[in-house]
Amino acid sequence: MSSMLVVGSVALDTLHMPSGHFPRVLGGSATFASLAASLYCPVKLVGVVGNDFPDHGIALLKSKSIDLTGLEVVDGKTFHWEGKYADDLSSRDSIATELNCFADFHPKIPAAHCATPFVMLGNIHPSLQVEVLDQIERPKLVIADTMNYWITGAPDELKKMLKRIDLLVINEEEARQLAGITNIRKAARELRAMGPRLVVIKRGEYGAMLFDGEDIFSAPAYPLEEVLDPTGAGDSFAGGLLGYIAQQGTVDDSTLRRAVIHGSVVASFLVEGISVDRLAKVTQADVGMRYAAFAKLAHFATTAEL
Amino acid sequence: MSSMLVVGSVALDTLHMPSGHFPRVLGGSATFASLAASLYCPVKLVGVVGNDFPDHGIALLKSKSIDLTGLEVVDGKTFHWEGKYADDLSSRDSIATELNCFADFHPKIPAAHCATPFVMLGNIHPSLQVEVLDQIERPKLVIADTMNYWITGAPDELKKMLKRIDLLVINEEEARQLAGITNIRKAARELRAMGPRLVVIKRGEYGAMLFDGEDIFSAPAYPLEEVLDPTGAGDSFAGGLLGYIAQQGTVDDSTLRRAVIHGSVVASFLVEGISVDRLAKVTQADVGMRYAAFAKLAHFATTAEL
Repeated sequence: MSSMLVVGSVALDTLHMPSGHFPRVLGGSATFASLAASLYCPVKLVGVVGNDFPDHGIALLKSKSIDLTGLEVVDGKTFHWEGKYADDLSSRDSIATELNCFADFHPKIPAAHCATPFVMLGNIHPSLQVEVLDQIERPKLVIADTMNYWITGAPDELKKMLKRIDLLVINEEEARQLAGITNIRKAARELRAMGPRLVVIKRGEYGAMLFDGEDIFSAPAYPLEEVLDPTGAGDSFAGGLLGYIAQQGTVDDSTLRRAVIHGSVVASFLVEGISVDRLAKVTQADVGMRYAAFAKLAHFATTAEL
Repeated sequence: MSSMLVVGSVALDTLHMPSGHFPRVLGGSATFASLAASLYCPVKLVGVVGNDFPDHGIALLKSKSIDLTGLEVVDGKTFHWEGKYADDLSSRDSIATELNCFADFHPKIPAAHCATPFVMLGNIHPSLQVEVLDQIERPKLVIADTMNYWITGAPDELKKMLKRIDLLVINEEEARQLAGITNIRKAARELRAMGPRLVVIKRGEYGAMLFDGEDIFSAPAYPLEEVLDPTGAGDSFAGGLLGYIAQQGTVDDSTLRRAVIHGSVVASFLVEGISVDRLAKVTQADVGMRYAAFAKLAHFATTAEL
């Protein structure tokens, strides 16, 4: 089994949900991705928090054997995001984004982590994502997440980053925006032409698609009856996806397809709780059972049987 | 192999598409559904046209061995719909809906058709759908399509119809509207409580879902690079779905899942042409190849392989 490096934000989120108010709960792309990946492989986290970061947060990450050598603790406050979700959770408004100690963050990869074979660049400024790659040996696979904020705010840096990664994870609408193309198949081809060999498009409750050359894999989403909090679903998806690849140690088509399902499995658990509450309790047995539910959900006879 | 009865509209459509203007081309729910089903089983069509209906329309239906005993030809004009699509085909506006001879239509099922084992009630007024069932012996399976127009315009008649069918085919947004529930799994349960044992929810470019008790099947959509005309996609889907079931003669879970894929296969061809142009040219070999493409699109190892 290989290990995996995650670089991204570690945050405290204040969530206004239909189910209640949740002040200063654990959040951040690296937090969600690390916890998701820890179900599959050893994880090393690189990020920054202030000295207000709660002990229970550190304890939770350590309880999942996540290596925190690369987690800086600095004087000051942790990145804090406050948001309010719509009643049906289909949209959210940012109330406050306080970068705090994250404003001056530059990832420093500990020497012992520089040869980690699988690397996830969480959803942070693309220049910071590139700084990570400048510090490490060429990994077996680098995946990166991004969002509309960087597509419009740092397009040149984003394009530089795309040339240096293997797999881009991106939302459907943002894929269209970045490619400038509505048709999803053509948009994926355009994104691949920008650098990454593989593109995974997240479609929320409609699942995810993997584009590998002209091969396409369409994964369903698990139809949950109750979703409590979608915050971090994309980060958990990417973390579970790469964590599974790191566990298997290979990047062939069959492994990639299973990895997309594992990412979907982990994300489906994450959204069942507030913040990391549900994800933190998921067991390997839970993963196996929900994977089987995905298989049942998607199965049909592969011959037309006319 | 069993045969199938289709009752619905036969129309002439004037289409304003990004790719051009197409006056008075073939349309109508029964036209699309019959042509789709004819790939799989013998089809009997019940509907009405005026004496302006073009000979090439009749010739096309006959060339697919569709039984037109139940197609009335009356003095007057054929149902005519005119619509304009958005540039990305994601929405359309009705410019004109001229019911013409369809205004007084009451389906008359020829005596020879009254024992047809598989029946599709195309998207027409729910009272007309019920009139069909009043004239025939209890079939093995009845499926019906409906739309927002009837949900808001004839809710009581719609509820009576739902109590008498086995399978409801409905768009995702209309499923939510009819059930009054946003969560798709709960909405499907509510729809099943209204009558139909089976519910199939159409999600356009996101595929389709089959709800059978607590069993759920999620089918992908085929990611096409070029869509010319989505008119009739839902009708073709339902026609292909029931046509396949009639061909197989059974309604078990495995057949139902394959039927949803076959419906998706046929609809994916339909939208590649204007009106019925592409659908009319589809061969069984084409169906087999695209079914295989769906299988490849959706395939992943069914064990988690942790």
